[in-house]
Amino acid sequence: MRRDPQAVFAARMHPGARWLPFDQLKPLIDDDRLGWIRRSDLADEALEIFLGLDDGMPRFAAAMSAEGLDGEARDVRAAAMTLSPADAAIAAHGRSLVDWHQRHGFCANCGAMTALAKAGYARSCGGCGAEHFPRTDPVVIMLALDGDRCLLGRQPQFPKGFMSALAGFVEPGESIDEAVRRELHEEAGIRIGRVAHVASQPWPFPSSLMIGAFAEAETTEIRLDDDELEEARWFTKDEIHAVFAGNGPVNAPPPMAIAWTLLRTWADN
Amino acid sequence: MRRDPQAVFAARMHPGARWLPFDQLKPLIDDDRLGWIRRSDLADEALEIFLGLDDGMPRFAAAMSAEGLDGEARDVRAAAMTLSPADAAIAAHGRSLVDWHQRHGFCANCGAMTALAKAGYARSCGGCGAEHFPRTDPVVIMLALDGDRCLLGRQPQFPKGFMSALAGFVEPGESIDEAVRRELHEEAGIRIGRVAHVASQPWPFPSSLMIGAFAEAETTEIRLDDDELEEARWFTKDEIHAVFAGNGPVNAPPPMAIAWTLLRTWADN
Ligand SMILES: [Zn+2]
Ligand SMILES: [Zn+2]
Repeated sequence: MRRDPQAVFAARMHPGARWLPFDQLKPLIDDDRLGWIRRSDLADEALEIFLGLDDGMPRFAAAMSAEGLDGEARDVRAAAMTLSPADAAIAAHGRSLVDWHQRHGFCANCGAMTALAKAGYARSCGGCGAEHFPRTDPVVIMLALDGDRCLLGRQPQFPKGFMSALAGFVEPGESIDEAVRRELHEEAGIRIGRVAHVASQPWPFPSSLMIGAFAEAETTEIRLDDDELEEARWFTKDEIHAVFAGNGPVNAPPPMAIAWTLLRTWADN
Repeated sequence: MRRDPQAVFAARMHPGARWLPFDQLKPLIDDDRLGWIRRSDLADEALEIFLGLDDGMPRFAAAMSAEGLDGEARDVRAAAMTLSPADAAIAAHGRSLVDWHQRHGFCANCGAMTALAKAGYARSCGGCGAEHFPRTDPVVIMLALDGDRCLLGRQPQFPKGFMSALAGFVEPGESIDEAVRRELHEEAGIRIGRVAHVASQPWPFPSSLMIGAFAEAETTEIRLDDDELEEARWFTKDEIHAVFAGNGPVNAPPPMAIAWTLLRTWADN
């Protein structure tokens, strides 16, 4: 069906079709579950985006007011605390697609207005005919390792007491390993030898592909780039075990974050 | 300097500063070398993009006519055959940035005109103030493995006699492993177990991050998606060794391609 957008939009007539309203990018949540609505409750002017099939039943995101519907439009990140992981992922993915559509009403090539196409997987330009697709930015997030120690840093906007693995966008013309080396050198002044890829995961704020890696430190003296980090320091494995036990010197990243996977994988090996 | 675009543009006055003209996206090539020009040869209306420092000397791409200059504007991919690998990479990277600027003269958010900003690393909107950055699309390219055999396929646009590893864009909301599994299933009907990351490299046609992986096949019967591949089949290690020796059943990917790294790594182990 992904290949046949007309078939997808025909699926709107399926009696099992459901829509998840997003009001100002906030999904409708009803009693800690996603507030799926039926076609009869869909606003006429709603922007509709196909999300996929759930057990054969079409699922859509719908940008529209949630007024008068059961439940409450809630911030995705706050709602993620109480939703099931599967529902939280659907809410985050839907929000990121709605956000992209709402910020791409015009063609970057010719300035004409664009219209939703391919059931929400693209926008097409009425002027020059260009097709535009949602972007996914590759981001590296890496744990620099010096034997029994790992490097964590603190961005100014982090919650109090929280430190995490360093991260940054892969720039045009770079490989993953090059981005890991450049970021650790720019942000913390560390020179890196070998880089090992560990895991990846999508991250929808905004739409990124987070690529997690271990990076072997060849130097250990930290020189901070003040624009990026307000603090960075080396932590021993014992300290990281204490962090996971809840009595360490800093707070751990949440389990859904790839930084958690990096720390856990390293600390347990 | 990357952080201080004003300093970058001041660097235009450096006596060692050089510009590489791109005429209709074709870099100036002079006698199998990049045709760097001095500021006195720069066209008034040239679009200038900072590429970096070469031994302390600022280097820029310049979108302008190459008429009257020494050398010839040549297609990047054709020129890559005779340029040094370092020069070929500069030409490809510059071309991809020039291309992005030329196709992003308008703001996707509000439709107003945008202007080059941050020495060419961004465009900023005169209407709503949004900043736009070049995109890099993550792409997976993977070798499905069934013991002593690997899977190669042929896209309709490939040169005659050429087959390669299967590839596709990572979609919003996917991890690398999920993209590998989905692509191999959609394009060839193969179910995949474990996925192992091998290497990555930038690829500038258009700006992508190619992420190479091995994928353990759990099924081996091929069902082709006719839209994507016109042929796919399993090759033994002996056949791949023959391919590299120049007497195999198909032609090998060029050494600069990540498909080459995947095949070589697998066949030599
Ligand atoms: Zn257009
Ligand atoms: Zn704008």
